[in-house]
Amino acid sequence: MPTTKTINLKQRPQGRPTLNDFDQSTAEVATPQDGELLVKLAYVSVDPYLRGRMSDAPSYIPPFEIGKPMASGVIAEVVESKHDKFKPGDYVSGTLPWKVTQVVKAKDLLKVDKSQAPLSAYLGVLGMTGLTAYLGLTEIGKPKAGETLLVSGAAGAVGSVVGQIGKILGLRVVGIAGTDDKVDMLKNEFGFDAGINYNTTKNMSKAIAEGCPDGVDVYFDNVGGDISDAALFNINKFSRTVNCGAISVYNNTELPKSISVQPFLVRKSSSMQGFIVFDYADKYPAAIQQLAQWLQQDKLTHTETVRDGFETIPQAFLDLFDGKNTGKMVVKL
Amino acid sequence: MPTTKTINLKQRPQGRPTLNDFDQSTAEVATPQDGELLVKLAYVSVDPYLRGRMSDAPSYIPPFEIGKPMASGVIAEVVESKHDKFKPGDYVSGTLPWKVTQVVKAKDLLKVDKSQAPLSAYLGVLGMTGLTAYLGLTEIGKPKAGETLLVSGAAGAVGSVVGQIGKILGLRVVGIAGTDDKVDMLKNEFGFDAGINYNTTKNMSKAIAEGCPDGVDVYFDNVGGDISDAALFNINKFSRTVNCGAISVYNNTELPKSISVQPFLVRKSSSMQGFIVFDYADKYPAAIQQLAQWLQQDKLTHTETVRDGFETIPQAFLDLFDGKNTGKMVVKL
Repeated sequence: MPTTKTINLKQRPQGRPTLNDFDQSTAEVATPQDGELLVKLAYVSVDPYLRGRMSDAPSYIPPFEIGKPMASGVIAEVVESKHDKFKPGDYVSGTLPWKVTQVVKAKDLLKVDKSQAPLSAYLGVLGMTGLTAYLGLTEIGKPKAGETLLVSGAAGAVGSVVGQIGKILGLRVVGIAGTDDKVDMLKNEFGFDAGINYNTTKNMSKAIAEGCPDGVDVYFDNVGGDISDAALFNINKFSRTVNCGAISVYNNTELPKSISVQPFLVRKSSSMQGFIVFDYADKYPAAIQQLAQWLQQDKLTHTETVRDGFETIPQAFLDLFDGKNTGKMVVKL
Repeated sequence: MPTTKTINLKQRPQGRPTLNDFDQSTAEVATPQDGELLVKLAYVSVDPYLRGRMSDAPSYIPPFEIGKPMASGVIAEVVESKHDKFKPGDYVSGTLPWKVTQVVKAKDLLKVDKSQAPLSAYLGVLGMTGLTAYLGLTEIGKPKAGETLLVSGAAGAVGSVVGQIGKILGLRVVGIAGTDDKVDMLKNEFGFDAGINYNTTKNMSKAIAEGCPDGVDVYFDNVGGDISDAALFNINKFSRTVNCGAISVYNNTELPKSISVQPFLVRKSSSMQGFIVFDYADKYPAAIQQLAQWLQQDKLTHTETVRDGFETIPQAFLDLFDGKNTGKMVVKL
């Protein structure tokens, strides 16, 4: 039987993951049966939420198993098909283990159209990233034109799309990112009204106040931690915080502490709401249609950081925690 | 001109207020003109939110002025009337300064019906307290029969009503209070399914888990601080926290810190929402009708702690922070 390379979870990380938490091995590749496809990975998505699945704390998705391949969103090419609707050369998207070639059930995959958008966009603006940005902002943030939107992790995969959608919807959009280059990009490429470099800003609360002179109506929060503490001081009455992620504390080994949000929420009649995109699965079709339309109208830019080669997946994932990506981080095989 | 006694804010408290922050003086009482009433206070409400108005930090209502009387919800008797709709002997409710007798504009007051409920109930279950409990629980908590409701400050004015409404709506209701007597009262008088004494419980998170074997769907939070940290570990997917108050940290002189809520909210697709009852003013009439009906049907108990005499107002207020009240704390003149 032919074999393929895999990348596995070697051990559960304590705190920040390192390359030692991963290893590579080989696995046998079966022959596709009826209803199955033999596929070869083309693009692999790495995302902060995978950190959660590396631990065995109870969460919304089961943890990865030690000694087995990790998994994430991928684009794959069909090599051999035992299903009517797919033929060799087709591209599909889905959540698959980190194995270069593998046999999968066709029903778990979605065909993607290479002619409509670059393949990797289906991991980004037309995939979970875009859906997370769009559905989080509209369903929870409920923005109204003229309001102010603050985005943390603004140069990241989700944040950069959130900000662009904010501009389409007529908001003042202010982004927080970790380098001057990223802040420039927020303003020059994504159309943000203002940007804040949290690594060079001493008083974040004051910087947010300056960037958001009318206060913050919607805070799209990808990071948690100190940055979100600073945001609290600037929320308006009836503000909505969209809790998409808390990457700044995902690697903490002790429970992170923050300024108590309760008095702020009471005083400002404000809300915080966490979510994962699957909560809104019934709204995917309409959302994808809207995102594809904006992409074709050039109202949305698809920005990504592409790493090369299956072996680079663990490092690409680790680099998310240093903010080394701009836009969606993907690995091309 | 006749004079009357007043209770004033002497100085802004640092941290926990003390009797030294108040003083008494006298003020002249004018003669009522057209559209005005001369009234005499009958019951004065003391409430945790007044602590906020003693500071000059920006908040949803302006701060009290130093050297001037404080103010709160009251029931007053009409002594003299220059308005068609009121006559001597009528009772009215409204927010008035702490002055025994005073002239007020009739349009700022509401007549209350002594035959329908005890007068002080209009400061409690039929007043802001009941409205806060009912509107917070239904509008934000959005409880569904069969779900579990956790209430902190459960023996307090709002909490005790929240729990009773929870039972009416078919929820499992678990309350947190500070003495065994209060916990007994939660179960025996208010119909709570279980109660937890936070002063004698070492592991609050575990105690909540035991009291809420199916997890917490709605958390009605009056206290914030450590108790709310413990609640976080027990929230269910899609849980709703109603942030009504944070009395445990109102007297902190430094910004209180808590466990970061963001990772919990993300992991559990859960929300927290602060409010004040005025946010839902358009829903008062229907809410009062519902509360009055339940009161008449004996489904709701009106519980209060009554102190005697105008001079006891400051101490009654201070005692809220030691949880010395059961149900609504009022002062009878």
